[in-house]
Order: sequence, then structure tokens, then C-alpha cells
Amino acid sequence: MAILTWLHNAYGRDLIDGIRAALPDEDIREWPEAGNPDDIDICIVFRMPPGFLKPFRNLKLMSATGAGIDHYLLDPDFPRGIRMVRVVDHDFAARMADYVLAWTLFHHRDLAHFLAAQARHDWAYKIMRSASDVRVGVMGLGQMGRLAAERLAAIGYDTAAWSRSPHEVPSVTCFHGAGGLDDFLGRTEILVNLLPLTHETRGILGAATFARMPAGGVVISAARGGHLVEADLVAALQAGTLRAATIDAFPTEPLPADSPLWEVPNLYVTPHCSSTASLQTIVDTFTGNVRRFRDGQPLLNEVDTIAGY
Amino acid sequence: MAILTWLHNAYGRDLIDGIRAALPDEDIREWPEAGNPDDIDICIVFRMPPGFLKPFRNLKLMSATGAGIDHYLLDPDFPRGIRMVRVVDHDFAARMADYVLAWTLFHHRDLAHFLAAQARHDWAYKIMRSASDVRVGVMGLGQMGRLAAERLAAIGYDTAAWSRSPHEVPSVTCFHGAGGLDDFLGRTEILVNLLPLTHETRGILGAATFARMPAGGVVISAARGGHLVEADLVAALQAGTLRAATIDAFPTEPLPADSPLWEVPNLYVTPHCSSTASLQTIVDTFTGNVRRFRDGQPLLNEVDTIAGY
Repeated sequence: MAILTWLHNAYGRDLIDGIRAALPDEDIREWPEAGNPDDIDICIVFRMPPGFLKPFRNLKLMSATGAGIDHYLLDPDFPRGIRMVRVVDHDFAARMADYVLAWTLFHHRDLAHFLAAQARHDWAYKIMRSASDVRVGVMGLGQMGRLAAERLAAIGYDTAAWSRSPHEVPSVTCFHGAGGLDDFLGRTEILVNLLPLTHETRGILGAATFARMPAGGVVISAARGGHLVEADLVAALQAGTLRAATIDAFPTEPLPADSPLWEVPNLYVTPHCSSTASLQTIVDTFTGNVRRFRDGQPLLNEVDTIAGY
Repeated sequence: MAILTWLHNAYGRDLIDGIRAALPDEDIREWPEAGNPDDIDICIVFRMPPGFLKPFRNLKLMSATGAGIDHYLLDPDFPRGIRMVRVVDHDFAARMADYVLAWTLFHHRDLAHFLAAQARHDWAYKIMRSASDVRVGVMGLGQMGRLAAERLAAIGYDTAAWSRSPHEVPSVTCFHGAGGLDDFLGRTEILVNLLPLTHETRGILGAATFARMPAGGVVISAARGGHLVEADLVAALQAGTLRAATIDAFPTEPLPADSPLWEVPNLYVTPHCSSTASLQTIVDTFTGNVRRFRDGQPLLNEVDTIAGY
């Protein structure tokens, strides 16, 4: 019985140190020092490479470090039938709202203008519009979309939202369904995508959507890579249909170092970390689950690896 | 009788066009095409150079384009005793809050990390703290400070404020007076300065203040240049006492192109435009005042150029 950890350097030593401190009696190994692969029965990994799990034929429990698990289940070598847990922070929606607000304000207040002006030593004054004059629209009114829309409205934005079924959110103009999409997009200068990925929403961030927004709009997507039609986004930015975009989720992740997206003017790439669990939450959830697993108790945040959710 | 305009290119043609459209019967001249200086009895200027007004000995009314007038009155050639008006937008405090929120979120979410990573084509994941774990402190609880503090709290920041006299703001921990400053600074990771400039607050953004904050804090100043001790700020950033700063107001403005401040790592310079009036407000206020002046009616937003406020 041993635990294997494969953790991205984003977490630094703190995450492994926290796990070791909480589980002093466990045999904890750090990839690539896995030792005998047959010893490994528990694994915690962050964005593992394909086939990573193949050598560990005694693996019984695997933990993600966040809420997303599609990535693991898409690996054809993923050992279906093992147990899997994920980490859900109590304030994922709040962390997502932080991301949405940060980039909405970045674009509204044109911080890129000031960063570029500073690089030129240029005192380049610029008139700003007030948030109350800026029309932001959130697609998706799940837990994350709703909180983001509420907070955008709370700081003064003229906020709308669009969702599949009717919703009511105080201070937010709500649209819904296919019939409401035109009106929603037609008034939305800064579009925030927090939709779930479904057959209806796949590719929704494409030419048809961008063309229905007012010219020179902004797109912020913190949902799924499958929403995005990369070529359409690049074309819209190059044509000026959109003036800027911030994208956190891509069809292929990590975005390859030679992807042309890194260098598209006015496209801001973030590495799928719009909402992350805190280190403490990862440590507490994972080590709690190790103890529960060893004791034969029900696990926290267990997912069905056959059904995929 | 003629109106002279001296407007920074930040306003583009729109401002002059708006003024001309609203005052079709006025003789409106654009610097440097002033014509006979004795014709000029009204002037609207943005950040005029020293001595600019000297040739206009028949000047009777002058309008700023914003709320700040210190700049004009500090010019020894300013013709004391002429009438002066300024432009106050109804939502100056909201625009200031936009600035404060934009830069607080920029630093909290470390957008500089992601911008730099993108430039390297590096998918550099980074764990974020939730706003509720980030302690922001606002100095100054005038109209602007109060709204900024309220909005920081509304989007989840652990928010405090410090002011000269006691105040109460819902969801904000309030400190006051010299006796409250240590406790306020000791808990403040991101310090937002919105104080008025007084004998007590001059130089408050200096070494003593920075040293009382937790190591690696952030300073955002959108108040007056006189609050800032430039050398202390640079030293604190270089030593890591502060991890970053955004400064909108400097002792000398515009910041000269050869100022070393432009290139201090982790220092973000903005050109004193944290809160600006909208174009429409400037046009409406100024042209309304021109009509009132010609008709001998009381002026809007008149300031006393002798007393200086």
C-alpha cells in the first residue's frame, strides 16, 4: 500500500508537505520516484499525461486536485471501475466570480492601454466609461453564472444573463432559450461564458454569436474548451468584430507552446485556473478521503467513473 | 467674445465637436489657432502648460474638464479673480470604485503572472486565493472611499477602512485616528489610498506605512501626488516589502518621459485618470455654463479661485 503523487509545480512543495504532515504513517511517493508500481493503490494527480496510470495495476483510488474530471476520463487508458474522488471547494463560485470580475474590469478599464502606454513612458490619458454604462452579459445561470451576474450587478454594471430555462436574478435582466438569444447578444458588450457543455452549447463561442454582438465587444470564457471555435475567435479579433477576449478553457489543454493563440493580438490566454481549490482544501479533502478509504468508510466527493460524473 | 479650447488628445475630436454643436453661435477657437488673444473671454483647458493663460488679458471665465483644480491654481500666472468652473460627474465615486476594483483584482488575481506567462507561451497554472481570504484596506472614508470600501466588501473581500474620525460602514471593519492606524495597516495586504491631501496625510505613502503592512503587500493610490514619497515606494518595491503598486497620482505630473518610475518592476503607472468625467458631462456642464455666463446667471460648480476651493 502506497500513495503516488503527481503534482504540477503550480502547487509547489506546500501541497505534498501538507499531505505528508496529515498522513505521517502512509508511504507517500513522488513521481517519478514511484518505486515498485504494484505497491501503489492510491494516486493523486494533476493533469496527468496520457497513459500515466497504465503501470499501476493495483490502483484502487484516484483523486483529482480540482472539480474537473473529464480530462482523466477521456484517457483511453483510464482504469474504469477504480474509485475516484475530486476536490470541490466551498467557494468555487466565488473564486470564479473573482476571475470574471477581474477580466471584466481589465477590459472595461482598458488596463492593456495603460500597460502599453507605460512601456512607452507615455502619460496617455484616457476617458473611461462608468460601469453603469457598460452592458455585460453572462451566459449560464448555474451556481457560478448566477453569482458572477449578481456581483457584476452589485458593482454597477448594466448586467444581463441568458440561460436555457427562465430564471430571475435581482438587478439582472434575464433572457432565456433560443428565442431570447438574439436580444441578449444584441445588447451585450462584454460576454461572459459560464455555460455547461452540452450538445446545444458546443461551439457557441463562434462566428454566429460574435456577429450578433455589438461591434467591438469582448468575450470572456471560463467554462469549457468545447464551447470555443478557435478559428472563429481569431478571425473575429483580427477583423475587429471583437476588440478583445480572455479565454481560460481550450479544446486542447495545455495549450501547446507552438499554438498560434498565444500571440493573437488582444487575446488573453489563462491556463484553465479561473476557479481553483485552495491548497488547504485539497490537502483536507484528499487526506480525509485516504483515511476514509483505509477505514472502509464512504468517500467524500466520489464520482462514478463509468457514468462519467 | 470668443472661446478658446485647449484639450488634450485624450478627448479626441468628440469633445470639441460636442461643444461646437451645443454652441453654434459662439466663436470657438482651438489652440494654437487662438487668433487675437484679446478676443478670448472664456477658456476650457485640460492640464495647461504653465503661463498658458498669460496672453489672454480679457479672460473672464475658465473651465476645467474635471473636478481637480489645484493644478491650475498652482500656476503663478493664474489670473486670480477670474471666475472658474469645474466639471463634476454625478458618478465620480462610482468611476473611482471601478478603478479601485480593477487594480485590486489585477493584483489579487495576479494578472501580471498570466500576461508574462502568455508572452513566454507558458501554460503556467497558479493557485488563487479567494477574495474572502484577501484583506483589503481603504484609507479615507469620504464619498469615494466609502463607495470603494462598500463595493470591495460586496464582492467578497475582507475589507477594512481607516479614516480620521470614527465611521461605520456595513460589512467593513472601521479603524480611525492615529491610534487605529497600526492595527489597520497590520492587517492590510492591499492598501487603497483615497485620502484627502492635508498636512497630516502628506507623505503618508512612505516607508513608515509600508513597513507596518504585512510583508509583500500591495499599494494602490488614486488620491493625490502629495501622499506619495516616490523614493520610499521604489525602495519598498525593490526590497520586496511591497510586491506591487499601482499609482495614479504623482508629485510631478505628467510623469516625465525620463522618470525612472516608468520602469520600476511591479510598479504600475496610470496617468491620473482613475476617475474622469464622461464626455457628455463635460460638454453639458461647460456649454451650460457658457450660456449661464452670457446670460448673467449663476454658474454651475463654480470655485473660488482666491480661496482655492
